Amino acid sequence: MINLYTWATPNGRKVAIMLEELGVPYAVHPVNLRKNEQFSAEFLAISPNNKIPAIVDDEAEGGPLTIFESGAILTYLAEKSGQFLAVSGHERYKALEWLHWQIGGLGPMFGQLSYFAIRAEQKCPEAIERFKQESERLLGVLERRLTATPYLAGEHYSIADMAAYPWTVSATSFMKDVLGEYLSTTPAIHDWLKRIAARPGVQRGMAVPNI
Amino acid sequence: MINLYTWATPNGRKVAIMLEELGVPYAVHPVNLRKNEQFSAEFLAISPNNKIPAIVDDEAEGGPLTIFESGAILTYLAEKSGQFLAVSGHERYKALEWLHWQIGGLGPMFGQLSYFAIRAEQKCPEAIERFKQESERLLGVLERRLTATPYLAGEHYSIADMAAYPWTVSATSFMKDVLGEYLSTTPAIHDWLKRIAARPGVQRGMAVPNI
Ligand SMILES: N[C@@H](CCC(=O)N[C@@H](CS)C(=O)NCC(=O)O)C(=O)O
Ligand SMILES: N[C@@H](CCC(=O)N[C@@H](CS)C(=O)NCC(=O)O)C(=O)O
Repeated sequence: MINLYTWATPNGRKVAIMLEELGVPYAVHPVNLRKNEQFSAEFLAISPNNKIPAIVDDEAEGGPLTIFESGAILTYLAEKSGQFLAVSGHERYKALEWLHWQIGGLGPMFGQLSYFAIRAEQKCPEAIERFKQESERLLGVLERRLTATPYLAGEHYSIADMAAYPWTVSATSFMKDVLGEYLSTTPAIHDWLKRIAARPGVQRGMAVPNI
Repeated sequence: MINLYTWATPNGRKVAIMLEELGVPYAVHPVNLRKNEQFSAEFLAISPNNKIPAIVDDEAEGGPLTIFESGAILTYLAEKSGQFLAVSGHERYKALEWLHWQIGGLGPMFGQLSYFAIRAEQKCPEAIERFKQESERLLGVLERRLTATPYLAGEHYSIADMAAYPWTVSATSFMKDVLGEYLSTTPAIHDWLKRIAARPGVQRGMAVPNI
């Protein structure tokens, strides 16, 4: 059985979406970030970076396997199941490049924007401006890609879409005041969001953890 | 032949190190970031995110293959060559989790710290403090890992070390004034840096591009 350590955030939901898409049994262990549970000794033993998501696969080949970092978890689950990531060839590396683009770009830049524009008590205008510009630039990159191909890796829905989807949704929800205006110029992103939102596994994954 | 589009930065050097470690022939195409060459139409066709590094493998299976994002490029080269990333099992996913940790954490956080603390004209103390704290936290995570195992994935040197090395070197070089003090408390990181710096492929890769 797969144990998922997670919270109601975009990074956690990527993995919940994948598990729901696969339809495999898994147990959810909520790690309450508001109570700083990510810093407990128990969770540190699973996630050396003190962040969710992390998984423990009790039935992995070679014994129980612990993995942190959503991109690594998605890759593991795709390789274990043979689904949502081509085994070889061009489409495999198109999926991996867009997965890494989300992990290294969209995720951290949206995260910093939400901190500086929304959560920070002291507002620093240069930081807000920097992360707003970079987030809009990244949304422009996404729009261009989705104008050319229906999914990030190309013709097929993959772990790259699962990674980018919850973050892009956040631009339309809790970051709407900051990024909503730019998003009114990106029709291909909206079509893609609709296509993905229609998937039952995505709907179930976006509701994990049930808190 | 592999074509490497790169510049003298940590993200570019990761890939140069891998190519040198593999000893495969490759052509270097410098993309001068100081002249904004990353925004040229020619480069955009290769790298949809307008960032280095990117590669074009003329001899990929199924025709010429273009890949951007250093993490995806490292994974491609490892899978193509069968080197520096286990094909399956625990050590594969330990390498991938630390690779993603570098791509999503160490890289962007050090990048933002160097921007706010060094390059920004208007200094924003809260942003400097935030990225300094987060960078030190990440170095603490690295120190803990390297106290337990000689390399990031475990017993063997892998693409995860190649990804983290040039960024960690930057903490001892151009970011020394900001992170040097914290680094005086991290003996395991220093041992690892020495072990990696002794590799001839790493020395050659760190000198690419020759500008
Ligand atoms: N690159 C990581 C990022 C993980 C991450 O930032 N997790 C956040 C929640 S979305 C977290 O655990 N934050 C708690 C903290 O930083 O203390 C991944 O993709 O898994
Ligand atoms: N996540 C990306 C980051 C790439 C990146 O940030 N590249 C920088 C140089 S180290 C760049 O091209 N900067 C130029 C720009 O942003 O305009 C990767 O690992 O490849």
